[in-house]
Amino acid sequence: MPLTSSTAPPEPELVAAFTPDPVEMAWAKINLEPHGVTLYDDYTKMIEQPGLNAVVIGTATSVHAEEAIQAMQKNLHVLVEKPLSTDLEICRSVVNEGKKHPHLKVMCGFSRRFDESYRDAYSKVEQGLIGRPSIIRSQTCDKHDPSGFFVAYAAWSGGVFVDMAVHDIDLTLWFFGDDIIPKSVSAHGIRAVQPDLAQYNDYDNAVGIVEFWGGKIAYYYCSRMMAHGQEDTTEIIGTEGKLTVNGNPQSNLVNYYHEGGITREVPAHYYGRFEAAFVQEANDFAEACLDNKPLALKLTNAVRAVEIGSALQEALVSGKQIRFDEIGRRIEENKL
Amino acid sequence: MPLTSSTAPPEPELVAAFTPDPVEMAWAKINLEPHGVTLYDDYTKMIEQPGLNAVVIGTATSVHAEEAIQAMQKNLHVLVEKPLSTDLEICRSVVNEGKKHPHLKVMCGFSRRFDESYRDAYSKVEQGLIGRPSIIRSQTCDKHDPSGFFVAYAAWSGGVFVDMAVHDIDLTLWFFGDDIIPKSVSAHGIRAVQPDLAQYNDYDNAVGIVEFWGGKIAYYYCSRMMAHGQEDTTEIIGTEGKLTVNGNPQSNLVNYYHEGGITREVPAHYYGRFEAAFVQEANDFAEACLDNKPLALKLTNAVRAVEIGSALQEALVSGKQIRFDEIGRRIEENKL
Amino acid sequence: MPLTSSTAPPEPELVAAFTPDPVEMAWAKINLEPHGVTLYDDYTKMIEQPGLNAVVIGTATSVHAEEAIQAMQKNLHVLVEKPLSTDLEICRSVVNEGKKHPHLKVMCGFSRRFDESYRDAYSKVEQGLIGRPSIIRSQTCDKHDPSGFFVAYAAWSGGVFVDMAVHDIDLTLWFFGDDIIPKSVSAHGIRAVQPDLAQYNDYDNAVGIVEFWGGKIAYYYCSRMMAHGQEDTTEIIGTEGKLTVNGNPQSNLVNYYHEGGITREVPAHYYGRFEAAFVQEANDFAEACLDNKPLALKLTNAVRAVEIGSALQEALVSGKQIRFDEIGRRIEENKL
Amino acid sequence: MPLTSSTAPPEPELVAAFTPDPVEMAWAKINLEPHGVTLYDDYTKMIEQPGLNAVVIGTATSVHAEEAIQAMQKNLHVLVEKPLSTDLEICRSVVNEGKKHPHLKVMCGFSRRFDESYRDAYSKVEQGLIGRPSIIRSQTCDKHDPSGFFVAYAAWSGGVFVDMAVHDIDLTLWFFGDDIIPKSVSAHGIRAVQPDLAQYNDYDNAVGIVEFWGGKIAYYYCSRMMAHGQEDTTEIIGTEGKLTVNGNPQSNLVNYYHEGGITREVPAHYYGRFEAAFVQEANDFAEACLDNKPLALKLTNAVRAVEIGSALQEALVSGKQIRFDEIGRRIEENKL
Repeated sequence: MPLTSSTAPPEPELVAAFTPDPVEMAWAKINLEPHGVTLYDDYTKMIEQPGLNAVVIGTATSVHAEEAIQAMQKNLHVLVEKPLSTDLEICRSVVNEGKKHPHLKVMCGFSRRFDESYRDAYSKVEQGLIGRPSIIRSQTCDKHDPSGFFVAYAAWSGGVFVDMAVHDIDLTLWFFGDDIIPKSVSAHGIRAVQPDLAQYNDYDNAVGIVEFWGGKIAYYYCSRMMAHGQEDTTEIIGTEGKLTVNGNPQSNLVNYYHEGGITREVPAHYYGRFEAAFVQEANDFAEACLDNKPLALKLTNAVRAVEIGSALQEALVSGKQIRFDEIGRRIEENKL
Repeated sequence: MPLTSSTAPPEPELVAAFTPDPVEMAWAKINLEPHGVTLYDDYTKMIEQPGLNAVVIGTATSVHAEEAIQAMQKNLHVLVEKPLSTDLEICRSVVNEGKKHPHLKVMCGFSRRFDESYRDAYSKVEQGLIGRPSIIRSQTCDKHDPSGFFVAYAAWSGGVFVDMAVHDIDLTLWFFGDDIIPKSVSAHGIRAVQPDLAQYNDYDNAVGIVEFWGGKIAYYYCSRMMAHGQEDTTEIIGTEGKLTVNGNPQSNLVNYYHEGGITREVPAHYYGRFEAAFVQEANDFAEACLDNKPLALKLTNAVRAVEIGSALQEALVSGKQIRFDEIGRRIEENKL
Repeated sequence: MPLTSSTAPPEPELVAAFTPDPVEMAWAKINLEPHGVTLYDDYTKMIEQPGLNAVVIGTATSVHAEEAIQAMQKNLHVLVEKPLSTDLEICRSVVNEGKKHPHLKVMCGFSRRFDESYRDAYSKVEQGLIGRPSIIRSQTCDKHDPSGFFVAYAAWSGGVFVDMAVHDIDLTLWFFGDDIIPKSVSAHGIRAVQPDLAQYNDYDNAVGIVEFWGGKIAYYYCSRMMAHGQEDTTEIIGTEGKLTVNGNPQSNLVNYYHEGGITREVPAHYYGRFEAAFVQEANDFAEACLDNKPLALKLTNAVRAVEIGSALQEALVSGKQIRFDEIGRRIEENKL
Repeated sequence: MPLTSSTAPPEPELVAAFTPDPVEMAWAKINLEPHGVTLYDDYTKMIEQPGLNAVVIGTATSVHAEEAIQAMQKNLHVLVEKPLSTDLEICRSVVNEGKKHPHLKVMCGFSRRFDESYRDAYSKVEQGLIGRPSIIRSQTCDKHDPSGFFVAYAAWSGGVFVDMAVHDIDLTLWFFGDDIIPKSVSAHGIRAVQPDLAQYNDYDNAVGIVEFWGGKIAYYYCSRMMAHGQEDTTEIIGTEGKLTVNGNPQSNLVNYYHEGGITREVPAHYYGRFEAAFVQEANDFAEACLDNKPLALKLTNAVRAVEIGSALQEALVSGKQIRFDEIGRRIEENKL
């Protein structure tokens, strides 16, 4: 038993790992192989390894869906990094494959659902502390990376709303309810620091509003331009109160008092903010697999999040509002 | 010389006051008349009082413009509470009258321009601390008043964006520059706590986005539903940094530690947040009149703020995006 | 009536001013004389000016007491800056003179009693929100002034506890009750940035504990070494809760987000923190004089604060604890 | 390899556990035995189990030292919970035993040294960001437990300064340097909520000052009376800046906005604040044992912390200041 496991979590074993990348493979030879992990440069071979129960897919988005489907066909539980795909049809194909294997645990990794602060906020909403949640403001804002990486990345990321806001949309589905139906989608963006994003029709800052049937609104801000670090903030505004998560971003509990004032640092990256949530996510998934417990989120949510993210992205690029009827069917513009 | 005037501000004297309201008049008889203030129940008579230099108009919005114009015609400086009018043509008539009296100081009172925190933020922007301001998020959120007052008020307030967001729009003109031209306007709203607002086509929560030509975006949130108090927050996001004003609302510097955690209180009203700004505004206006100094803001801004606010309100009510060309002319929908 | 007086405060007039300093006199000729203020370079002449009702004494500490006594003998109300004197006997002589003129308002200016945050904290204590106040932590910490001014100033300031902690001691008397009796006093100090203070037996950083009969303790920290600005913080810790005042020092409501993190500025000086309190103090004093209302604090408190401050200073310099019996008589060391 | 080990920490195995308590044993039978952990109700038998490398001692303080010594004699590495003992001679006996086994890793668990925020503060001090650390304020404040547990506990805890402030003293040795020598010790306490502590000469609130040779001061506050939760705060004040750790206690990143203001929660217990530090401590210790790396803190520090804590406790109980000469020898009172 590992020494530091105070709460006796499930104990999955890492027995195999796959990467097509020689640099990652070299790292794995030093860090994983000595601990008894078998290494593969071929995903399909890895999932044939006897004794395997579950697979965690953290590869490029373009192969998420295919690898998830292959794993299910080999009778493996699947934890796949978000998004399933930037293409809606492909997202749906993963869900459809999942329906054929109802005994398998298949989860798309929306890490914020496993963050202690979001969980606390959710529990306060459930206790009725803020009345009826009515407005959500949520943002995913990355520290500015001047290297130009995000320009190349934009070629296949699906765009800023599919890549970044998909987290905020998932939170919206969590706090407003999975069955909520969008009524209209508006979005606008600028290219303030990476004009080259124009070649991929993408933006480095974007604001969007999703109006839902039933009197609820979510509005989102995505940015790749933050000077100070990662700033993922959410407000859940109810009829009788409000909750904020990460309203004051901070790396830790230190404040530095100096001639220019009082300064606190901010995590530079998503992982710096959500490390504990990733651990919790892995533990929850492992526990669901090993003890046959329900998963924390439905796979269909992962499709709905991409659905709304794609609509936002389309509204952003076209500059036109998109509308839906009360059962979620898109209303053609000439019928407005 | 008043005892507490540490910095020797200008010293206007209050010599006359007008109100049509008997309750206010009774108050004035006790509190103003003994100090030598002449009281009037007729505005036109008051502005004929000899020796008068300037007038401060804080009456109902519907008479702001008319009273301002009458005062200018009597050769009086004017400080008029925002908005000039909820009707754009009437707003413009005040500006036009002002042009005939170039020696008069005529200012529309956008109190936040006189708030020390906003002024500090503006000075930091001018110093280049955040690079090029590109995104503004600004909200005007009132404490929920369950009395229903705001339903009646909605009949003539001009709507949530003209009445509340007009402050945020004025800040946008300040931080982005007076000459900025909107490109598109989108807005959505709900009635979460005051469904009766429907009779006036108004909303108790509204979110809007204004995209400007030149790669800038402002997005706004107005609410009359806050449980905790007045929360007027602004973020100015630049290419190299960000400034927030009132990110952590607070009544004062007290924190109360108790069994449920640590609590700080929030001002219940706009005045609780901006009292010092109102004093500064009055002092600045008085100084401009007495020492013939320039005013802190142009009267034309007051028109532009209502212009954008009206467009937001129209987008909100119609559910349709509104677009403008590069010189600010509205683009008809069938030409999109 | 002044234009900005929203709440119709009392209206004292400044009619005379005194200074022995030619630089200050030159300033006064420009800023006060034109407003009808008569200027004096002789204090005794000024207080003979006909029509004078009250005098505000903000001269050097060494003449506070004498000037206050002279004013009372001329039948003038007196607001005198703290401390009355650094010498206890002289402090008492002011109180004794006051007793001969019970109709006069004589107040020593402890500005923090007029600060809105301290007043709010006091009101919360009175409401019983923290149970029985039992421990007070309070600090007066100045921004480091490398000019060496404080070395010269130490020659006559009475020492760090009499000059700075006297505010914290006054707060202690307010929150614990005027009649509280010290049981023991301990204090220790260092000279971290101004070693030349040794010639005056003073310190640039000092920590002291005052234990009171009845189970209460106050502990203080004074410093002249803060890099970031003025930091005057107080905690009132009760049996059922705690209140902090200025736990997070700040100049205003702006936060600046930049590559190094998130920074807020801090007032550089005492006045930057307490400007509004000074105005409130002057208004309260004026109102007490003009409307014959009770003063906010007793003159005897000003003596008790110096009494405790002097004991702390003595403990600091001697390195020995000082003890008192239950009626406040000092216990000689050989009787311990 | 465990699934969630992102950074490949050392991998100790828990193979044996001891408790004399039947309730704990019952828990262990369910939670540990199935994972291959052998259970013992006899400590001396456990440490004879073949293959054992290290032992973690978290038993009652009274047996810490004996068990640590026995383990060393069995050639086992030792991580023992603080304090080694409340008796200085016994503390020293552990250090002496350690000297006989220089190849063994023997560490007393001061958890705060492994807290990320304290480590960040330490690294900032090392970078020179605050100049020369000169004043430390540190407090260990527990949530009030009205059950009376702490009265019984006081019988053998060593007193509030040995039990609680020992953490703050250890931090002082870390930030000021291990070789710092106390010059004087003063302390005062009250019994505000648990008068029965009088029978054990202990207090529920205590304040102490330790003056060090070389111009440094630390002052401490210990309390068992906090209404709001665990509040362990440290300020390190240097000649050019200041660092605070946990100046704003918080359970997580949630703020709740409600009619009474804005509230954040506070961890109820020490473990809630320092859970991640305990994990880090165990990992560091394991790594030191498995990879023969140096420990993060010297065992002699654990003795020095108790030494200073005992002096504070004696000063508290006797009401007398204690003094030391420049090489740390106590100065008898009659020689002062």
